Amino acid sequence: MKKGIAYYNVGEIFDYYMLVKSATKGVASNGKPFLTLILKDITGEIEAKLWDATQEDEELFHSEQLVKITGDVNQFRGRSQLKIHTIRPAQPTDGVKASDFIEKAPVDKEELMSRLTEIIFEMKNPNLQRIVRYFVKKYQDDLLTYPAAVKNHHEYVSGLAYHIVSMLNLAKQLKQLYPDINADLLYAGIILHDLGKLKELSGVATPSYTLEGKLIGHIPMMVEEVGQAARELQIEGEEVTILQHMVLSHHGKAEWGSPKAPLVREAELLHLIDLIDAKMNMLNRSLEKVKPGEFTERLFAMENRAFYKPVFDE
Amino acid sequence: MKKGIAYYNVGEIFDYYMLVKSATKGVASNGKPFLTLILKDITGEIEAKLWDATQEDEELFHSEQLVKITGDVNQFRGRSQLKIHTIRPAQPTDGVKASDFIEKAPVDKEELMSRLTEIIFEMKNPNLQRIVRYFVKKYQDDLLTYPAAVKNHHEYVSGLAYHIVSMLNLAKQLKQLYPDINADLLYAGIILHDLGKLKELSGVATPSYTLEGKLIGHIPMMVEEVGQAARELQIEGEEVTILQHMVLSHHGKAEWGSPKAPLVREAELLHLIDLIDAKMNMLNRSLEKVKPGEFTERLFAMENRAFYKPVFDE
Amino acid sequence: MKKGIAYYNVGEIFDYYMLVKSATKGVASNGKPFLTLILKDITGEIEAKLWDATQEDEELFHSEQLVKITGDVNQFRGRSQLKIHTIRPAQPTDGVKASDFIEKAPVDKEELMSRLTEIIFEMKNPNLQRIVRYFVKKYQDDLLTYPAAVKNHHEYVSGLAYHIVSMLNLAKQLKQLYPDINADLLYAGIILHDLGKLKELSGVATPSYTLEGKLIGHIPMMVEEVGQAARELQIEGEEVTILQHMVLSHHGKAEWGSPKAPLVREAELLHLIDLIDAKMNMLNRSLEKVKPGEFTERLFAMENRAFYKPVFDE
Amino acid sequence: MKKGIAYYNVGEIFDYYMLVKSATKGVASNGKPFLTLILKDITGEIEAKLWDATQEDEELFHSEQLVKITGDVNQFRGRSQLKIHTIRPAQPTDGVKASDFIEKAPVDKEELMSRLTEIIFEMKNPNLQRIVRYFVKKYQDDLLTYPAAVKNHHEYVSGLAYHIVSMLNLAKQLKQLYPDINADLLYAGIILHDLGKLKELSGVATPSYTLEGKLIGHIPMMVEEVGQAARELQIEGEEVTILQHMVLSHHGKAEWGSPKAPLVREAELLHLIDLIDAKMNMLNRSLEKVKPGEFTERLFAMENRAFYKPVFDE
Amino acid sequence: MKKGIAYYNVGEIFDYYMLVKSATKGVASNGKPFLTLILKDITGEIEAKLWDATQEDEELFHSEQLVKITGDVNQFRGRSQLKIHTIRPAQPTDGVKASDFIEKAPVDKEELMSRLTEIIFEMKNPNLQRIVRYFVKKYQDDLLTYPAAVKNHHEYVSGLAYHIVSMLNLAKQLKQLYPDINADLLYAGIILHDLGKLKELSGVATPSYTLEGKLIGHIPMMVEEVGQAARELQIEGEEVTILQHMVLSHHGKAEWGSPKAPLVREAELLHLIDLIDAKMNMLNRSLEKVKPGEFTERLFAMENRAFYKPVFDE
Amino acid sequence: MKKGIAYYNVGEIFDYYMLVKSATKGVASNGKPFLTLILKDITGEIEAKLWDATQEDEELFHSEQLVKITGDVNQFRGRSQLKIHTIRPAQPTDGVKASDFIEKAPVDKEELMSRLTEIIFEMKNPNLQRIVRYFVKKYQDDLLTYPAAVKNHHEYVSGLAYHIVSMLNLAKQLKQLYPDINADLLYAGIILHDLGKLKELSGVATPSYTLEGKLIGHIPMMVEEVGQAARELQIEGEEVTILQHMVLSHHGKAEWGSPKAPLVREAELLHLIDLIDAKMNMLNRSLEKVKPGEFTERLFAMENRAFYKPVFDE
Repeated sequence: MKKGIAYYNVGEIFDYYMLVKSATKGVASNGKPFLTLILKDITGEIEAKLWDATQEDEELFHSEQLVKITGDVNQFRGRSQLKIHTIRPAQPTDGVKASDFIEKAPVDKEELMSRLTEIIFEMKNPNLQRIVRYFVKKYQDDLLTYPAAVKNHHEYVSGLAYHIVSMLNLAKQLKQLYPDINADLLYAGIILHDLGKLKELSGVATPSYTLEGKLIGHIPMMVEEVGQAARELQIEGEEVTILQHMVLSHHGKAEWGSPKAPLVREAELLHLIDLIDAKMNMLNRSLEKVKPGEFTERLFAMENRAFYKPVFDE
Repeated sequence: MKKGIAYYNVGEIFDYYMLVKSATKGVASNGKPFLTLILKDITGEIEAKLWDATQEDEELFHSEQLVKITGDVNQFRGRSQLKIHTIRPAQPTDGVKASDFIEKAPVDKEELMSRLTEIIFEMKNPNLQRIVRYFVKKYQDDLLTYPAAVKNHHEYVSGLAYHIVSMLNLAKQLKQLYPDINADLLYAGIILHDLGKLKELSGVATPSYTLEGKLIGHIPMMVEEVGQAARELQIEGEEVTILQHMVLSHHGKAEWGSPKAPLVREAELLHLIDLIDAKMNMLNRSLEKVKPGEFTERLFAMENRAFYKPVFDE
Repeated sequence: MKKGIAYYNVGEIFDYYMLVKSATKGVASNGKPFLTLILKDITGEIEAKLWDATQEDEELFHSEQLVKITGDVNQFRGRSQLKIHTIRPAQPTDGVKASDFIEKAPVDKEELMSRLTEIIFEMKNPNLQRIVRYFVKKYQDDLLTYPAAVKNHHEYVSGLAYHIVSMLNLAKQLKQLYPDINADLLYAGIILHDLGKLKELSGVATPSYTLEGKLIGHIPMMVEEVGQAARELQIEGEEVTILQHMVLSHHGKAEWGSPKAPLVREAELLHLIDLIDAKMNMLNRSLEKVKPGEFTERLFAMENRAFYKPVFDE
Repeated sequence: MKKGIAYYNVGEIFDYYMLVKSATKGVASNGKPFLTLILKDITGEIEAKLWDATQEDEELFHSEQLVKITGDVNQFRGRSQLKIHTIRPAQPTDGVKASDFIEKAPVDKEELMSRLTEIIFEMKNPNLQRIVRYFVKKYQDDLLTYPAAVKNHHEYVSGLAYHIVSMLNLAKQLKQLYPDINADLLYAGIILHDLGKLKELSGVATPSYTLEGKLIGHIPMMVEEVGQAARELQIEGEEVTILQHMVLSHHGKAEWGSPKAPLVREAELLHLIDLIDAKMNMLNRSLEKVKPGEFTERLFAMENRAFYKPVFDE
Repeated sequence: MKKGIAYYNVGEIFDYYMLVKSATKGVASNGKPFLTLILKDITGEIEAKLWDATQEDEELFHSEQLVKITGDVNQFRGRSQLKIHTIRPAQPTDGVKASDFIEKAPVDKEELMSRLTEIIFEMKNPNLQRIVRYFVKKYQDDLLTYPAAVKNHHEYVSGLAYHIVSMLNLAKQLKQLYPDINADLLYAGIILHDLGKLKELSGVATPSYTLEGKLIGHIPMMVEEVGQAARELQIEGEEVTILQHMVLSHHGKAEWGSPKAPLVREAELLHLIDLIDAKMNMLNRSLEKVKPGEFTERLFAMENRAFYKPVFDE
Repeated sequence: MKKGIAYYNVGEIFDYYMLVKSATKGVASNGKPFLTLILKDITGEIEAKLWDATQEDEELFHSEQLVKITGDVNQFRGRSQLKIHTIRPAQPTDGVKASDFIEKAPVDKEELMSRLTEIIFEMKNPNLQRIVRYFVKKYQDDLLTYPAAVKNHHEYVSGLAYHIVSMLNLAKQLKQLYPDINADLLYAGIILHDLGKLKELSGVATPSYTLEGKLIGHIPMMVEEVGQAARELQIEGEEVTILQHMVLSHHGKAEWGSPKAPLVREAELLHLIDLIDAKMNMLNRSLEKVKPGEFTERLFAMENRAFYKPVFDE
């Protein structure tokens, strides 16, 4: 495949396929309609204006449509913009498919599932293990395809499972270094902490927030689900309360959506591991797009910092 | 009954009964043991030191014991302190009973229950009404005896029910003034909003926080219970989600323990009504204890303000 | 009257009258002048660009002019915009008048005045009553026509008086529920609290801030006026100080413009009643414009929240 | 005079006179009454316990009484404490007088008044000058004796006038360095900014807050007085509004009690000059009490910092 | 010279020279390229669009180029914009030179240097004096030409030295008023406090941040340089530590970039003097551009306040 | 060895050795001198009062003295206190040595050094490696004995080296999981980040802050040292700047003492690894002291949280 849109510099000519993420109609200062297209491939997005858009254009260039496009990469108000020369819907004969333009986790679903299974197999506390199995079974399909978030980090197909597996790997190493950790509790917390997102978000492709997501949020929703699962499985005792606490407290403090801060060692660790893996995901993906000696774009979820890529980097 | 301990001035002699709230052993600078007693009646509390306490004293003067006591009211580090002259356990022949020394709501349980029933009867939305009935039935005893909080406001027997009924009265008036309000939703939110406290607190007499209360808190616990009740009653639909949202958001913002701020009109109103009724309860009870022209003690839950009682007050 | 501009959807054709709220000249990218018109009726506002505006256009389409307009309702950068087809000044023969396009309180001036008089008549404290009468007499005309604010809540003709009367109604109910309240003090505080706005704002139709408003603000201005009135009426004593305190503290805390937080029970209530009535006004007017199942636009003065209108609303 | 109490080290014997600032009765753990005396001279204060205090002691050793005292300077919970050997009321024959034990400004009243007069004489704007004269005449006695504050800075006799004169001196220098400054406006603002304290505080010797001081505060009280003075003097126009703005904004921001931040250059300068003079007063007086190479005690009004006195200081 | 661009009103015709500060290429909605020029003279800047820009235009109108331009001053989105009629590069025969269009300090380099030398000559502490001399010698050229900042205050040629000299003048007056001040320490701190900017900024004309400036910042860089200088000069002792502390703490608190708040009297004064001089510079330059009775534009570095210029100003 | 003082309950008799951490003289309410002793062993500290202390007692029981003590463990104001029965200095014949009563890292110095050497050996970037070697050689003795802090975490002998080695182990695992990490940079940052503490703290046994530590702090001091080392080693280039940035930014944000937040991936990681290792150290040591089902004491450095130890913990 050609280099992705994120790697084009101002002045270069683009001549390849992209997926239409959204198409919004507007009226130009000359009174004529135009389309604002957000186009994407797996490396990023770019805006393009289709001036003097006809009724037919509106029908052709809608969300989820794959298009063949040529144009100049320009700058407008400090952001890249594609000046369209030609645009047409992709044809079957072009031999490209939409799924190649949607970013997905660097590890495939089967491998993610097998790693999950492996870790669950290692768990020794039967109550924690049974609850975890219950959820993995109940949500298996969605768990393996959902993104971990709408934006910022792991916001791609299978992002949630990839995030969970990365966190589990990190947890396993921490258990080696700090043997007092209750590994079963930490593993269970990691696997369950964000499953509320399966109900908070509307789907995989272009996820938005559900009504329940907006009014309740994934954290209280998942606290409730853990309680309900325990009742179904007839599990009682502190494991249930503490697992609910792990889910409830994993954002770290009230201002960030956790009405209780972590009050159990493994809950504190869950919060820290979540933080590290999310930050590494954001940093690595942004740094990949710049050259040594340059700064990344500002990362909103990291206090709007722009990061520097040293020139002596291996 | 004699005037309560809260109304004694420094220099006055106390000669009546009080209830021992707590008794803690210490060792004085001369090496002899002493007891620090917290004594209470329905108007307030006072600390007293029992110097040179014997083994027998320790056994006699424990928490929940009613005692006959004489002593001087003094001042120590800016707080009242009772200097004990004589102390003895109350006898059956004294004709006093512990329950007269425990503060309770100014309205009795039967009246609170009948007011609750009346309001529930007025509700027209069957889903909301059924969920409310379910909880009132399930928790009737505790609901009518629990305090609304451990300290600050309505921290007395039946305080929770009294707080709920006061809020319902206020809600009913607001419905008259702002007829767009969905009264059923508001009533349901008021009745359920703090029921999680029945599991967060350990009991009526000397309530402390349960483990679940400390690790999960009454808000997420009640969100879960509302979901569970709806499943039992086979009620589905927006009423359930919005009722959960009412409970979840009633503290008003994340820093105060509500991961979602109110996003429905009646949820916002629930938060405001809760605020007004709690504040009026704190203010009225503090102002009662001071004379016109004086300031109350500082009220921690009202940003540590001391309030002034005007001399021209009716 | 036809449905208001706030109820038009993108794509609909508008063909009716509106009032020009402001007209600003600009120069388009093709070098030609244009006018940016803000047009309003009693339901809301919309922006419209008049391209290639002539000298004559500039003279015709100025602030306060009523116009007949046809056009398409479009979307531009997420906000509605009217694409003008035809525009002309309204004629006497059109049978429309400007006042029908300016929002006003839902209750008329006479009724507001009579409700005010009624409440003042109920007051028993002669000092408080005389000070209130002094101000109602001094400012009667402005008091009955001014808006309560430039934006956010009650920002329409007679908004201030309507806000005062709503607050008085609420205060009267609270007095029933919490009889310890000093009703005279609360009523006096409510009637006077915002009268400083009559000098802070420049007028009724298109209010802006006066120099005194910008440099001193309505709160200290009104504190001064209360003092001056008391001197004129030869009233001395605590009522004056406490009435000044009510005005001074009604924003609730220093960050919000009250150098003293409320330190008298009725001052705290005044702040809470002001909050409730302002919020109900904002919420009701925003919710009216959306359908069940939708969210309102974000309300800046309510921490930028968008509120949900339940589908099961009566 | 002997060295002041602030300069005694732990272990030294004190044998001189001090003034009783306050005397509070308590009951010791052995059941006997004692007096806690706060004793002061012009350098500072020390606490002393008078054990086994008799009824006669209580009568002799009250606030404002000058006493002859001998004792050891000890340390208790990190603060100095005087262990009393002997104590008796001072006699006329002792040849000491109370006023020598009360701190006052390092410049006397006559000199402060003459410096004030000098500056007022330099003012050219007749409106500003007349208003300033009005206040200096109205409050002359109090203005020359009041402290500038109850604690922290210039909290001694004539502290207010001394603070004003220091600020005027600084303002005069700033006018040299930045000639655009309107000196008349700045001088008027400096002289008036804190005059509200004459009504906010109860007196000179042991000032406390008046009711008006607690409920309104010196800033809005003085804004009102400026308005009233202008009306009496029949002065109208921007000078009055801006002078009120100077007073209103001199604490710099809302959180610090100024509902409007400075919006005029000279108002900003007034705030900064006030800050510098208050800080220099606190710093110099604290540094005087420590030796080179030591840190001062923590200064509450300077964010609780302890300041270092360099060893190489001249 | 003609009046500066900052003094033009909307509607006026501009017909004079300006310097191109930056030229950015864009593509208009009609698909044709244009240049966005930022033009400046010593009073301010204005944006201008050069539509239908040719390849030749791009080459002619680049940063640092002096141009002769005619056009209308318009308003666009609330900011001034120049509508270009004609534009051409300035010719040698025009008799204008770029340096006349770059703002510089109102006092020339020689005078600034001589004032600096004078103050250093007055210093008595040999260690402090030698360190100061070392830096003035090492950086003399840059010190006399650099701006004090990229924007906000003293952001012009020789701004740094002008700021230092103004601060020294103010310090000298303060020493008169508060004689306890260690003048040598204060002078040394003032001269050195911002010298790290010579490495933090890339140059005089169009300064940007260097990599070291972005990753380390001028404060820690200068702390290091002071240490290094002391080692080179073989100076040891508290003067070095305290001078480093002066530099380190001069932003006043951690949130503003000083990991230690001022803990020495002269460090606190340095911070305050820096504040006053920066604010006076911002205020005076903004107020100069408005007429009495008007407000300045909002000043970002002064909490976004707009300041009022009184009509009675001399 | 007997169980440590941290494991005694109220009411138990202590009869063993402890080290005097500090001895402060006071005067009791009966006028007699007493000593407040802080006694410690490797598990914790306890306060004890030695009443009626003689001159000889003062000489015998000073800081760093090992004592044989018997007494009761009591409670005073919620803290443990030892009521002394007998106390005497330890004798050589007792066979105990002071070093057994000072907490130290669980791994010995030789092992820590060898692990450090191993990691340095793995580094490939010669500039980073040489700078690290320079510091390890220069400070070897102190580096291996200093605590990492005065309180909160790793506040024991060899705490700094133990903290560094734990962080290096964690870094090595992270490099496996996120291979993009520049391990050399991260290792160098970890080894150097806190070396400024060797100058900020006064020593190993009872560390306090040096003057330089108080006025400059370990972060800017170490930034300077890295610069100086690079000059000595004649190393130039980005490695030096970025290493200084790692040290400067490792507290994460300005409020926490880092004037620059991390702007390089490895700097962000250094901050996170530091956080995790410090938190795990605090948590593990606190949890060790409580039984399953209990909460730890409140941990000041973890937002004052008390952590729960689950009963089902392995």
